[in-house]
This record gives sequence, C-alpha cells and structure tokens, in this order.
Amino acid sequence: MRISELSRRSGVPVATIKYYLREGLMPPGRPTAATQADYDQTHLRRLRLIRALVEVGGLSLASVRAILTAVEDTNLGLHEILGQAHYALADNLGSATDDPDWPAARADVDALLDDLGWHVTIGAPARDQLARALMTLRRLDASPTREELHPYAAAAHTLATHELTLLTTAAQNDASTSDIVHQAVIGTVLYEPVLLALRRLAQEHESAHRLHPPDRARH
Amino acid sequence: MRISELSRRSGVPVATIKYYLREGLMPPGRPTAATQADYDQTHLRRLRLIRALVEVGGLSLASVRAILTAVEDTNLGLHEILGQAHYALADNLGSATDDPDWPAARADVDALLDDLGWHVTIGAPARDQLARALMTLRRLDASPTREELHPYAAAAHTLATHELTLLTTAAQNDASTSDIVHQAVIGTVLYEPVLLALRRLAQEHESAHRLHPPDRARH
Repeated sequence: MRISELSRRSGVPVATIKYYLREGLMPPGRPTAATQADYDQTHLRRLRLIRALVEVGGLSLASVRAILTAVEDTNLGLHEILGQAHYALADNLGSATDDPDWPAARADVDALLDDLGWHVTIGAPARDQLARALMTLRRLDASPTREELHPYAAAAHTLATHELTLLTTAAQNDASTSDIVHQAVIGTVLYEPVLLALRRLAQEHESAHRLHPPDRARH
Repeated sequence: MRISELSRRSGVPVATIKYYLREGLMPPGRPTAATQADYDQTHLRRLRLIRALVEVGGLSLASVRAILTAVEDTNLGLHEILGQAHYALADNLGSATDDPDWPAARADVDALLDDLGWHVTIGAPARDQLARALMTLRRLDASPTREELHPYAAAAHTLATHELTLLTTAAQNDASTSDIVHQAVIGTVLYEPVLLALRRLAQEHESAHRLHPPDRARH
C-alpha cells in the first residue's frame, strides 16, 4: 500500500510516519519509484504498536526505540528481552529519590519482596514504582502493613503466572522472538488499563451487591 | 498551626493552600487575628488527600470537588457515595465515542459483564474505560476473547471482594462516612499504582524463575 493508505488505515498522519521512518523506528518500504514506496501489514502492525506504546503506555520515542531494539537483537535470551522491555516501559514513571521519605519506602519494598520470596533484581524500576506509591500512602497516614499488601501481591502473582505460561508456551511453539515480545509488551502495558477497569467494575458490582437493597441492584 | 507550618508539613505552597481555601476545597481555619488563622490535623489530612488525588490520580480540581461534596452530603448512602467517588475519579479518562470501532468495543464490554454476572449500571465510566482498552487491543490485532479476559476479571473480583469487606467492616464499626470515603478513594486510586507495580515485579520474578538458569535467578 502507499503511504497515504498506511496513514488512513493506522490513523497516523503521513508526516508522523515519515518521521518514524527517518528515525529508524520502522523499516523502509519497498521502493516503487523515485519518491514512492510500498508498505505492507508489517508496517501497519509496527505503526500501531508504536502508537499504542506512546498513547496508552505514555512512553517517549526513546523508550519505544529501546524496546524495538531489544526485539531485534537476536543475541538476547527471552528473559533479557522481557527485562529490556520492562525497563524501557518504566521510563515514564520518574523518580523521587531526593525525598526524605524515600529510603524508608524503598526499604519497605525490599522487605516485602523478601517476605514474598520473589526474585527481582535490585535495580528493577518496578521497585521504585512501588516505593513511590507507598510513599504517597504514607503521607496520607494510610501506609499499608505488609500483610495488607499480600492480597494485591497474590492477585499480581496469579496473573503473572498465567501470563508467563502464555509466553513460554508461545516460545515452545516456535513463535518468533518479535511476536513474543510484541505479546509481552502488549500484555504488560495494554492490559494495565484492562485490569484497572475490571477492578473498578468489580468494586461497583460488589458495592451494589452488599450495600444496595436487592430490587435496586439490577443494571 | 499557622498556614506556613501547614505548607511546610504538606509540601503544598502557601499560595496553593489559599487557592484551595478560596475555592472551598478546604474548610477555613479558626481565626486568631484579622489576617491569621489556625489550622489542625484535619486540614493537613484534607490537603494531602487533594494532592494525592491531583498528583497520583491525575484528577482535575472539579473532580476533587465532586468527591469532597459527596463525602459531605450526609443524605447519601454508602453505595451512592462510593458511586459518586468512582464517577468523579473517571473524569480524566476521556472518551472515544466518535470512533467507528467504539460500538463494537462497548458491546464486548456489555457481553463480558453479562457473562460474569456483574451488576454494573449501564452508564458506569469503567465500562467506557474497559472499552477504550479493548479498542486499542483490537487495533493491534490483539483482541482478547472473553475467556482470555476471565483471569483478569477473577483477579479484579478477588480484590474487590476483599476491599468491600474492609469498607463494610469499617462502616459497621461506626467509622465516619468521611473516613470510609477517604479509605474508598485511597483504595480505588492510590492502590492502582501499587497493583500495577506488584504485577510487574511478579512478572520479573516469574520470568527469572522460568527463563533463567538457577544460578542467575538470585537478586
């Protein structure tokens, strides 16, 4: 397809597509004339992945590039590629390490992970992500105890087990590394709003169920 | 305490505190002189709640006001107050109802909720939130089947059950409505980053566990 068709089908303006091509975020099309090229489904798919990472994941183009580079580095094992993707996905979270409450929040996270017996590298950005959230709760006098975090950790672990089973099954079935990382990135970033929306729906359901008279608990 | 002390302890600039006072987001302090007032722990707590809703929840001041108004309306039952809080919390999500894929995504959400047997009002903003997420996945050719969403729904339901038990227990123990909504708002908004961070940590743990040689799977 021509670049105009690619733009129409992806909803991404032609100028933006040209920018991604110049920046090497997408492979060039197949030249058909001096100023024309032909694009296919792989371009459309790549374009949609970039837009999803930017718009839903809130990632910078530098992080998108890091993920795409990891996908294309065939020397990396699956765990390393997932790690690269995870670490790139975390770049939009910022840090707060100059805050006086920071060391205590990080220590809480480290103690929780020891308690759970989870093996997570000491520099994992999700440790900082959790510490930030705990710091906010601490300021509201709403610090959870370690026991109060366990239901969330258990739910997270159930999902992670399910997700890693899907990924390792795909790997055993000879899916390409690019497909597996595509799936991992989608699973990590794009299922976050799915999970949060379902939690709010479940909260409304449970609230209706428990706090409403039965005749009003219908939708 | 004086407003300068309130500012120091909350980290919120004096000018911002004065703005919240003018906008009625906080009750006035007890006047001690023509241009001075005394503030207490309830002011500090309210200020921290506002900042958390704005900074972590990404809410507009209009939504913060809607939540605070619901908290103070003693004619509302707990389910209605939680609903008000939930609906206000959703205002930062935007909508996409003019998108051609929107009706199909909303129909998928409605079918999923029927399937789950969840009672959720037809106008609940979390329905739109989920539809938006599903629309993005559909564009990436990664639309989940209803069965593929069940593990996420099950995890969400487990957490919601746990959370509503905590809230109804607090209500039975004669906690004030304001305290319960404070807890509900914190639970809804501020545990979202907790849950997402724990999911990423669990993913790294499971990935290390399954894809790494044992001697490298230590932190």
